[in-house]
Amino acid sequence: MAILQFSLKQLAETLGADVVGDDSVVVSGIATLQSASAEHISFLANPAYEKYLSETQAAAVIVTAAQAKNCPVNALIHEQPYLAYAQLSHLWDTSSGINDSALSVHPRATVHASAQIADGVVIDAGVVIQAGAVIETGVNIGANCVVGTDSVIGQGTRVYAGVSIYHGVSIGQNGIIHSGAVIGSDGFGFAPDKGKWRKIAQLGGVVIGDDVEIGANTAIDRGALDNTYIENGVKLDNQIQIAHNVRVGENTAIAACSAIAGSTTIGKNCVLGGACGVSGHLHIADNVHVTAMTMVIKNLTEPGVYSSGTGVQPNAEWRKSIARLRQLDKMARRLKIVEKSLEEMGRKN
Amino acid sequence: MAILQFSLKQLAETLGADVVGDDSVVVSGIATLQSASAEHISFLANPAYEKYLSETQAAAVIVTAAQAKNCPVNALIHEQPYLAYAQLSHLWDTSSGINDSALSVHPRATVHASAQIADGVVIDAGVVIQAGAVIETGVNIGANCVVGTDSVIGQGTRVYAGVSIYHGVSIGQNGIIHSGAVIGSDGFGFAPDKGKWRKIAQLGGVVIGDDVEIGANTAIDRGALDNTYIENGVKLDNQIQIAHNVRVGENTAIAACSAIAGSTTIGKNCVLGGACGVSGHLHIADNVHVTAMTMVIKNLTEPGVYSSGTGVQPNAEWRKSIARLRQLDKMARRLKIVEKSLEEMGRKN
Amino acid sequence: MAILQFSLKQLAETLGADVVGDDSVVVSGIATLQSASAEHISFLANPAYEKYLSETQAAAVIVTAAQAKNCPVNALIHEQPYLAYAQLSHLWDTSSGINDSALSVHPRATVHASAQIADGVVIDAGVVIQAGAVIETGVNIGANCVVGTDSVIGQGTRVYAGVSIYHGVSIGQNGIIHSGAVIGSDGFGFAPDKGKWRKIAQLGGVVIGDDVEIGANTAIDRGALDNTYIENGVKLDNQIQIAHNVRVGENTAIAACSAIAGSTTIGKNCVLGGACGVSGHLHIADNVHVTAMTMVIKNLTEPGVYSSGTGVQPNAEWRKSIARLRQLDKMARRLKIVEKSLEEMGRKN
Repeated sequence: MAILQFSLKQLAETLGADVVGDDSVVVSGIATLQSASAEHISFLANPAYEKYLSETQAAAVIVTAAQAKNCPVNALIHEQPYLAYAQLSHLWDTSSGINDSALSVHPRATVHASAQIADGVVIDAGVVIQAGAVIETGVNIGANCVVGTDSVIGQGTRVYAGVSIYHGVSIGQNGIIHSGAVIGSDGFGFAPDKGKWRKIAQLGGVVIGDDVEIGANTAIDRGALDNTYIENGVKLDNQIQIAHNVRVGENTAIAACSAIAGSTTIGKNCVLGGACGVSGHLHIADNVHVTAMTMVIKNLTEPGVYSSGTGVQPNAEWRKSIARLRQLDKMARRLKIVEKSLEEMGRKN
Repeated sequence: MAILQFSLKQLAETLGADVVGDDSVVVSGIATLQSASAEHISFLANPAYEKYLSETQAAAVIVTAAQAKNCPVNALIHEQPYLAYAQLSHLWDTSSGINDSALSVHPRATVHASAQIADGVVIDAGVVIQAGAVIETGVNIGANCVVGTDSVIGQGTRVYAGVSIYHGVSIGQNGIIHSGAVIGSDGFGFAPDKGKWRKIAQLGGVVIGDDVEIGANTAIDRGALDNTYIENGVKLDNQIQIAHNVRVGENTAIAACSAIAGSTTIGKNCVLGGACGVSGHLHIADNVHVTAMTMVIKNLTEPGVYSSGTGVQPNAEWRKSIARLRQLDKMARRLKIVEKSLEEMGRKN
Repeated sequence: MAILQFSLKQLAETLGADVVGDDSVVVSGIATLQSASAEHISFLANPAYEKYLSETQAAAVIVTAAQAKNCPVNALIHEQPYLAYAQLSHLWDTSSGINDSALSVHPRATVHASAQIADGVVIDAGVVIQAGAVIETGVNIGANCVVGTDSVIGQGTRVYAGVSIYHGVSIGQNGIIHSGAVIGSDGFGFAPDKGKWRKIAQLGGVVIGDDVEIGANTAIDRGALDNTYIENGVKLDNQIQIAHNVRVGENTAIAACSAIAGSTTIGKNCVLGGACGVSGHLHIADNVHVTAMTMVIKNLTEPGVYSSGTGVQPNAEWRKSIARLRQLDKMARRLKIVEKSLEEMGRKN
């Protein structure tokens, strides 16, 4: 693998940053403050790591103007070091990942005659593209993916190996879909019928906007009648469940293992921590932040931070807590009685 | 795609329903009350949506006899409008999904010489069928699925793309298995051995009944010695974990992301909400309903509705709640002391 | 399928156990005490099952010396019957599972010319091996797996069908990876940038030790800058999420559906129950046991058993409990006031 080298001058130009120190110094990678050596550039984004700044072995560190005075090595001054790091990280991302062996359409891909494959696509071995599917220019589809009938994958979107996309799914531009994701599976819809379940055909589709990232083994169900919507800029981590007719608003980010039940709408610019559950038919406002493992069982109509759950305790203490929790209603009633008794005593005296 | 049209007369006959209004009216799809236009039939199943009935633009609405008087358009009278909708939905489900390009056995499927493939099956590109497997008539297996040694897929069952079925798995008739599902993986069984884990070979299989639906990315482990059982009519949503030697009883439905630990038995006609966890070696009675995100850590021997978890709160309030929860045992003791003091005061006076 | 038969003498030699009874008796399988018949050997590991010993129909039972006097049939005496069972279980594990049809490299596998494939490997149909990958001797890769650029699979490791391994992933020796697992997907890293999310390239890899088992549909993300580490002897169940830069210590076992957030370190010899969540940037000490569905939101610096969550209740009681939980802070204040009043009264009297 070639080593990519850049001078601090080049990096500063890329970022629109200023260099304090020697801008001719050359670096060949990014590393954390603790693990960096003389060929690395580093960054200080999290205040908790400021303690590592004084002893870093990095050639240079991206810092804010305020932090620069404490930087013992060359500094790149940037208002948002974390964002600067995000930008630079792509300079060293030379891998084409698990999709690299294919050039245009691999002879071992199976593409239906009626599918439309644009120029400049990469479709790897074992991929199956069904009738009427549309693969736009610049799309990269990893080995053993399946794209269902009439589905569309927008320009520049990368689909890693082993993704299953059902029929009637529309995916926007410049997305990233990780391995094992399933998009367009049937929503979980059944009508009770004399003790059995009668399946409701899931006739809607899935519409995914531009710049959406979908994590490994995440599942997004198709709508029952209308569509399921994932709007522009949404970021979904791994192992997430999006049920039928959910709408996830623009630029919302959801961490791993969260589940959104059917017909719920999540607003724009929300952040959901990992392993949250949101019940069905709810509305979550824009700019809501839900912390990890929260159980959202009502509408959240105001922006803000929301939580539930009980934090970890030593098991012996926890056993007491949950036993007491079961008695809590009784305790509340007993407290009420105590208060009344005291009040009466007060009146008597 | 052809547009499928039906007169209200035809639909009423299909359902055994009565028409109030003009039964010659033709519709070409189903839609919700809010989104329906003049070419749609709609339905009123959820009382919360009754408010949309008066303004619906649908050509006709499926309603109960009691609701018919409030229906401003043609009505189909049915005792269970939701069930009627379920039945009609299949009329418009013309897609063969992601499995449509194969006719009988696709030349790019790999079928072992000793496997038995019935007439009238569809096996798509990239499918691998191992030695001794049995694929019964009418089965449809999507692209890139794998069926292990000696496994059986019963008549009429549909397996969507990208499903992995291990050896010795038996799947009944008319089932539906969604993409990414894994059936027959090893149970999680290890014996401690001087600080390491020694694997226990998982020698049982998985037996799945008829009319079972299994959601995307759901995993069902094989048994350790005996089998894991999913009985007739069970509906499993996406991302579910069924551990070794679990038995899920007839017609039970489990929502997404729930996990059932090893050797637990779930009764018949149960409903588990999403993201529930059920500990191992438990017995859940028939007709139990567990709400979403509940932690089931004891047997549930009586039918009924069960829950756990703490609902969502603004983060600042939640912090107080969980701090107090940790003090709850102490609070209970303090309340006891207060009550005693009052009692003594009462005796004194 | 051939029936494998062993005399008790042979089994005792394998285990280093003593036989009480007739060591010429031949058995052809293992079964539980309840389901065993005259051709089976059984074992008594869980004291809860001791009640089944007196009526077992097994030909022989593996028991401790102390239990032997209660054994009504032939006994194999072993200090750890569960471990003995684990050892014997492999004698009857004759299936090669879903990977059996391939001999060396299947003609329908696609192997890049620059990949290094050792002798004695089995690579099944539909497998795609990218440039520079290294497949060591004795490795078995199931149908439709993908191995990314420059990844290494160590000697003797078995990868079941449908696994996706990204580029730059290193997997040790004698591992087992179940279907649907995804290893090396991008960590969930984004920098906020004027209301949008800017992706951070995930430049680290994944390093997995020897003797590691990874369950079905489990996902392990690659590191942001450094690697994600799964140390020797770790056992991960199904549907687990391991975020970027996590380190899971030697011989730790994690049950299904648990999620470990980014940069967290789990110690050695830990056990995490199912559906646990561990927040990011935490340290969990060695020998920590976390019970199922626990929400770990702080460091656990001492060995021991930890828990959280509220156990299942009938729904009507639960509604009261969580209503009261929301009032808990107020209740605590009211209790304080009551105590003060009593104290004042005490002083007055």
